[in-house]
Amino acid sequence: MNFSEKLLRATEKHHSWLCIGLDPDLDPLPLVLKKRSGADAIVEFNRRIIEATQDLVCAYKPNSAFYEALGPHGLEILTRTREVIPREIPVILDAKRGDIANTARKYAQSAFEVYKFDAITVNPYMGWDSIEPFLAYKERAVFLLCRTSNPGARDFQDLNCSGVALYQVVAEKVKEWSRKGAGELALVAGATYPEELQIVREIIGEELMILVPGVGAQEGDLAKAVRSAANSERQRAIINVSRSILYASAEEDFAQAARREAQRLRDEINQCLE
Amino acid sequence: MNFSEKLLRATEKHHSWLCIGLDPDLDPLPLVLKKRSGADAIVEFNRRIIEATQDLVCAYKPNSAFYEALGPHGLEILTRTREVIPREIPVILDAKRGDIANTARKYAQSAFEVYKFDAITVNPYMGWDSIEPFLAYKERAVFLLCRTSNPGARDFQDLNCSGVALYQVVAEKVKEWSRKGAGELALVAGATYPEELQIVREIIGEELMILVPGVGAQEGDLAKAVRSAANSERQRAIINVSRSILYASAEEDFAQAARREAQRLRDEINQCLE
Repeated sequence: MNFSEKLLRATEKHHSWLCIGLDPDLDPLPLVLKKRSGADAIVEFNRRIIEATQDLVCAYKPNSAFYEALGPHGLEILTRTREVIPREIPVILDAKRGDIANTARKYAQSAFEVYKFDAITVNPYMGWDSIEPFLAYKERAVFLLCRTSNPGARDFQDLNCSGVALYQVVAEKVKEWSRKGAGELALVAGATYPEELQIVREIIGEELMILVPGVGAQEGDLAKAVRSAANSERQRAIINVSRSILYASAEEDFAQAARREAQRLRDEINQCLE
Repeated sequence: MNFSEKLLRATEKHHSWLCIGLDPDLDPLPLVLKKRSGADAIVEFNRRIIEATQDLVCAYKPNSAFYEALGPHGLEILTRTREVIPREIPVILDAKRGDIANTARKYAQSAFEVYKFDAITVNPYMGWDSIEPFLAYKERAVFLLCRTSNPGARDFQDLNCSGVALYQVVAEKVKEWSRKGAGELALVAGATYPEELQIVREIIGEELMILVPGVGAQEGDLAKAVRSAANSERQRAIINVSRSILYASAEEDFAQAARREAQRLRDEINQCLE
């Protein structure tokens, strides 16, 4: 089963385009877990978040940085987290990797063979041969950064390249390259820039997936973002939320609070798509 | 001591602008080591390469991908490798990271606090707020990708942005931003494109360091690259070589062969700088 099929099944089953970012941070970790040792606390935190939300999401997205910051042991926490997620829910590793082909093959091996993720985010700056090794995996997907959700997105992604912005050139390339690999190509465009998100959807057409971060803590406008990113069938826009779900409560009830927030967001996304 | 001071001391002491990329790959690993278990073999390989070359280099540069591909244990190998390198030789983590500020802080924490590297390579695509967290560390350096050494560098980095190529805009930003952080900003420009390398040096001026990959297996022209990257005092161009040193021999004598190749390259670089 390819990535889109797996994702669409989860979407239909859970009636959801919500993806939860699993970015555990020791500082805002609920007090009830802080008594445990660091690693166990994080695995337990992730486990309870996943168990409380797994019937409400179309995907999960752990960001590698939060695990790497814990040293070698953090990658074991990532492995254990991956194992807790039900097999039928796709997991996107947010790693934003990119390197020359020989090295990109190692990153692809890590993400797809060692940790067995369904998809990975990749930075486009180094061009096609830095992306191709990830697309050699048939049932996996690559989400290329296009227009990111942060303020610095303006520094380079908006540069005028012979009449179109750099991020638009990236979107055009994603469309062109989407026919070249065995794996599936998709892209990342932030909720904080809904106009650009709409332009990106117009460029790439109906088929390709867009992963939309920036809702919640980053304060992107959910309704505008959902409508701009979805295709004409109101499909294929994966809305990622991390902090506002994970840290909905700092108390004993953090998992139930996360569930309530996830449910609210899922329903709001669905309303926007009606 | 800041990064440049540390690097310049190693340069003077070893009369060298050569940096060795520590990118251990199980496939071309010398036969003599293959009998050991994977992890031990790689630590031993790195240890023998470092011991054989440490008086010939100005820096080492492990690429994170080669360690990540070995799973959580690979990061322990990276830690053990870091410990083998003498304290006075700077170590650049080649990780090409880049993410929103909140996440970039985690990557910076990983590179500088957990693994204690002296510098890291960072991808510029996401702009200033994705770079700033790395520059919060006073005695460390950030090497921003500018014009990379791979064929795909042309896909985006050469795009015409209102009269100048994208990589030139990045170089201009590196110069501008180099005054903004506590840490030191530098850049990466590949040996495979010497004309572009020269343009980059002209843009950034005399002070900033350039890390130059692409010599050796990637077949960049060493003489042209060295002369293009160095400033007018024939300084501040760090020439990185990985595979052609690491795998100079697949036999028992691999460390001596690596030493000979490193010595030859160091001397050739110095001749180009005379």
